[in-house]
Amino acid sequence: MEAVVEFPAEKREAKIAIGRTLLDAILSARLQVSNVCAGRGVCGKCRVEVLSGADHVSSVVDLERMSLSDVDIAHGFRISCCAKIKTPGTITLNVPPESLTAAQQLLVAGIQPPVKLSPMVSKHFIELTKASLTDFTADFERLSHILGATFSSTELKIGYAALKALPEAIRQGVWQVTATVSDDGKIIWIDPGRTNDRLYGFALDIGTTKLAGYLVNLNSGTVVAKSSMTNPQVTFGGDVISRISYASKGENELLELQLEVVQAANSLIRKCCEEARVEPHEIFHIVIAGNTAMHHIFLGISPKYVARAPYTPAIRTPYRVLAEDVGIKANAGAILDALPNVAGFVGADAVADVLATRIHKMSKLSLLIDIGTNTEIILGDENCLVSCSSPSGPAFEGACLKHGMRAEVGAIERVWIDPSTLEAEYSTIGDEKPRGICGSGVVDAIASLRNTGLLSFEGRIIPSGNSTRIRKSGSAAEYVLAWKEETDTNQDIVITQRDIEEIKLAKATIYSGIAILSRHLNVKMHDIRKMFVAGAFGTYVDAHSARTIGMYPDIPLGFISFVGNTAGSGARMCLLSKDERTEAVEIARKIEYVELAADPNFQHEFLNALYIPHKNAIPNQPS
Amino acid sequence: MEAVVEFPAEKREAKIAIGRTLLDAILSARLQVSNVCAGRGVCGKCRVEVLSGADHVSSVVDLERMSLSDVDIAHGFRISCCAKIKTPGTITLNVPPESLTAAQQLLVAGIQPPVKLSPMVSKHFIELTKASLTDFTADFERLSHILGATFSSTELKIGYAALKALPEAIRQGVWQVTATVSDDGKIIWIDPGRTNDRLYGFALDIGTTKLAGYLVNLNSGTVVAKSSMTNPQVTFGGDVISRISYASKGENELLELQLEVVQAANSLIRKCCEEARVEPHEIFHIVIAGNTAMHHIFLGISPKYVARAPYTPAIRTPYRVLAEDVGIKANAGAILDALPNVAGFVGADAVADVLATRIHKMSKLSLLIDIGTNTEIILGDENCLVSCSSPSGPAFEGACLKHGMRAEVGAIERVWIDPSTLEAEYSTIGDEKPRGICGSGVVDAIASLRNTGLLSFEGRIIPSGNSTRIRKSGSAAEYVLAWKEETDTNQDIVITQRDIEEIKLAKATIYSGIAILSRHLNVKMHDIRKMFVAGAFGTYVDAHSARTIGMYPDIPLGFISFVGNTAGSGARMCLLSKDERTEAVEIARKIEYVELAADPNFQHEFLNALYIPHKNAIPNQPS
Repeated sequence: MEAVVEFPAEKREAKIAIGRTLLDAILSARLQVSNVCAGRGVCGKCRVEVLSGADHVSSVVDLERMSLSDVDIAHGFRISCCAKIKTPGTITLNVPPESLTAAQQLLVAGIQPPVKLSPMVSKHFIELTKASLTDFTADFERLSHILGATFSSTELKIGYAALKALPEAIRQGVWQVTATVSDDGKIIWIDPGRTNDRLYGFALDIGTTKLAGYLVNLNSGTVVAKSSMTNPQVTFGGDVISRISYASKGENELLELQLEVVQAANSLIRKCCEEARVEPHEIFHIVIAGNTAMHHIFLGISPKYVARAPYTPAIRTPYRVLAEDVGIKANAGAILDALPNVAGFVGADAVADVLATRIHKMSKLSLLIDIGTNTEIILGDENCLVSCSSPSGPAFEGACLKHGMRAEVGAIERVWIDPSTLEAEYSTIGDEKPRGICGSGVVDAIASLRNTGLLSFEGRIIPSGNSTRIRKSGSAAEYVLAWKEETDTNQDIVITQRDIEEIKLAKATIYSGIAILSRHLNVKMHDIRKMFVAGAFGTYVDAHSARTIGMYPDIPLGFISFVGNTAGSGARMCLLSKDERTEAVEIARKIEYVELAADPNFQHEFLNALYIPHKNAIPNQPS
Repeated sequence: MEAVVEFPAEKREAKIAIGRTLLDAILSARLQVSNVCAGRGVCGKCRVEVLSGADHVSSVVDLERMSLSDVDIAHGFRISCCAKIKTPGTITLNVPPESLTAAQQLLVAGIQPPVKLSPMVSKHFIELTKASLTDFTADFERLSHILGATFSSTELKIGYAALKALPEAIRQGVWQVTATVSDDGKIIWIDPGRTNDRLYGFALDIGTTKLAGYLVNLNSGTVVAKSSMTNPQVTFGGDVISRISYASKGENELLELQLEVVQAANSLIRKCCEEARVEPHEIFHIVIAGNTAMHHIFLGISPKYVARAPYTPAIRTPYRVLAEDVGIKANAGAILDALPNVAGFVGADAVADVLATRIHKMSKLSLLIDIGTNTEIILGDENCLVSCSSPSGPAFEGACLKHGMRAEVGAIERVWIDPSTLEAEYSTIGDEKPRGICGSGVVDAIASLRNTGLLSFEGRIIPSGNSTRIRKSGSAAEYVLAWKEETDTNQDIVITQRDIEEIKLAKATIYSGIAILSRHLNVKMHDIRKMFVAGAFGTYVDAHSARTIGMYPDIPLGFISFVGNTAGSGARMCLLSKDERTEAVEIARKIEYVELAADPNFQHEFLNALYIPHKNAIPNQPS
């Protein structure tokens, strides 16, 4: 007797015997979920959402209530190792990205709502009448006479590259050509003959750490290839501030950084083109999204004043430039659209996030956060959106932590501390021996310490005679996550009091940012009905733990969605549709920017947020 | 007792004693006029026009009537060596360019009607409010908010170079900047502080043989420096066809030719800038005029199909491009406007000629010709203009003639044959020993041969026993212009029957072109009331001689104006005024192009024009 368990997001399914768990189904579908306590039901990391067929699953057991609130349960969340198949039938599951292991998460692309296909570049096949001694109209006028009928409202223009290609294309195509026209009525390229079926665009998400590119067939709207790589600028500094300070040294340094990222973009284009058998010159439109500093550096605009109070960008509105002028190797006439920015630290990537999540169309109060060295926070609904940037710093990337490391192989990514034994269980990326701890692991660890009573409301480690894992280190205490015998480094891996202070500062900037935006909209944080977590780190971190330490607001887990790399999604959407780009411009115009540093309530809110979870919470209440 | 003789065009004057001639006055004002017969009154080359004060000059003598018609005399024309100062007073003279020696003529710039100053680029000084934590508007939006008020109708855009310069310019200028804006509402450059007084443009006439550049102060409208040089492309062929055929070989060859002319333009810019103490980056607008092939090559557009029937250009409408994209070294945001073309062989230079001569506003039938390897001819009035291009070939440049040479030092430029002795008198450029004969000299020689009866109506040299200068050469005859004892080459310099055939073909293409255009407008050639002769060769050639050999129509000399390099004038006018550029676009649209090769009457008219002066003239009537 079997049930069918479907995973629509991953397009997989598994047949599973009655009596087995949902975790068995997940593993059988070859999805790699976190499972720190090895199926004992105590760590709560293998959380799933039952979308349909809940009748075929066993009832919620007490063990699950340790990790799930009533609201979570009402939303259909289960701890998969505790939930068993009861009767045959079809069960549909959603595995939240945070439940997947990091290796799996890297594959999670951003969500993308359906988009009506209407690209900003279009191809037009044209049969010209042959020139003769009685009809010697010039090439461009001959072409625009016919093409002009399609674009009745505007006088057609022709780009320089297209004009240079025109005479030969006409004769090579024996008076049949295909003109590529941009939405502003400019002929940007001419091919001899009929080439309507070859129309491609490229969406580029320029992250401080990672570049992601998507080659899109603009006739069908499908992504035909995608590729990503580390932003090669990381050699000039991992965070955006060090990048800005290097680029601000002088013109050569700016050019150097620009060249790095442009060449990387070109290599992504080449890779995608090879994979999809597309020629770079068949790419006619490029859309980029990135934070304001990345946007500026990519375009060769100095980001110097983005990093200096009052953090003004050079330009907020969308900017169109010839791709060739930036150094991008695509069609010689290809246009490049840089999506609009909001402010110095709320960039085009945030606009793309909003576009992809549609929070600007929500009737209910919604929150969007994209956690990074700077965390962009956007709060609001269809009527109004406010945004801020919280300087959360590099702690979540493992920097400044005693044994912190990036989310790489060997990093402890999930932690659970047994409340009775105070012993730690953990999982690492790649299932290797631990080499350190990454952001999601630290957040888990602090949440666990708090849940087990080893951490005070103020965030101090409470010495406990019951466990050898708590020990003194100078004037403060530390918790041993992994003994040196278990590690790859032959050193104990610990969480120190100082580590906790770093994370407290980081999470407090985020929480207080959300609090300030709530004040601006005159709403309460617990009125938030939808929270979108965008970007890589947000996807890794356990939402339950993040809520426990007061990094996320006190809202049900069911209200939280992980949307992945929506900066890339937003860029793709603008590539696919004029309307979406218009929408993006509207969004950028609509989002009000709140400068935290200038807000009189910021300090108060920040001090409140330095508690765990925060001062307004009743101390020691299990969250 | 003296009279004052004024030369308003040259801004000179001379005081001259009663009894002396107008020629004495000209020489005393240090103007170099042709004076082949050394003041004997017989060659008729030292023609002047008395503009006022004719009462102070002696009456016309019979000798003058040999060179001037009644209508010419009625217009105030005199042979200056025959006209004497009679009474004290002020006499105003115009020395027609054709009466000046070639050395002097090189200095003659094109005429230019008055133009209302309204350049296409403008500078705007702006005081910005300083950004702060409560006013963190982006730089571009901060700027365009204030600047936008000036340009109410359009949404301001910003060029790429300007955007890159913007953040630093604002801080360097301590929130005071000067924005340069083009007429299409685009900010093309930003300077820190106030730089309104530094706004320059550059007009460039791209001749097949010569480049002429004019640096213009766009605040005052004055030309602050000018410079000219040989088009370095001449090493790839002297005429436009060989240039086209080289550029058509492939992309590299086209680029090579483009580079030559662009580098030459840059050196003209540099020279003018040095002379006027202007920095190239203070040049914000460049206007170019040239024939269609030169226009195409300058822009890097293949001219291949301009040279092949049906001779279609790539583009007829005006074209604007970033000067930097063409390789021009001016301001990084400078715009370059290429004036519109009419057809493959009636280019932007002809449009500029019309603009400068204003024939598109004439109520009377007017003719414009610009003689070269291809001669552009435009006929019409305010209602209608028709144009054609006559392939007159390189004969007028001295090519294909036995002793032909360019109009360089040592070239015989003026010829007069004494009707009684049949002896030749001549002058050379630079007063050096003759090395050959240039176009204007050949035209003079043929006219003289015809006037003295040594040349038949059909254009054959008639052997004459009265002169040793006429001699046999093979089956035909030739006329010796200069004996080897007089020459620099130790060879006789002769006009051969073959030379005459070459010139006959050349002049017939021009005359028949005018005839075809007259047919198109349904007018007679002798109805022409104004004839403008543009370009270098037209300025050198003696109009009387040109009319005698049937190159110019049978109209009074007084109807003929020499307008010089009006291609350059037209380019300057468009630099100075938006309205003039609009006018140029209108002109290009208005001019109807007539393809001679496709005209059924062309052959008939061409055959008629092979006579001297032409078949419709009564043979042997003195012209």
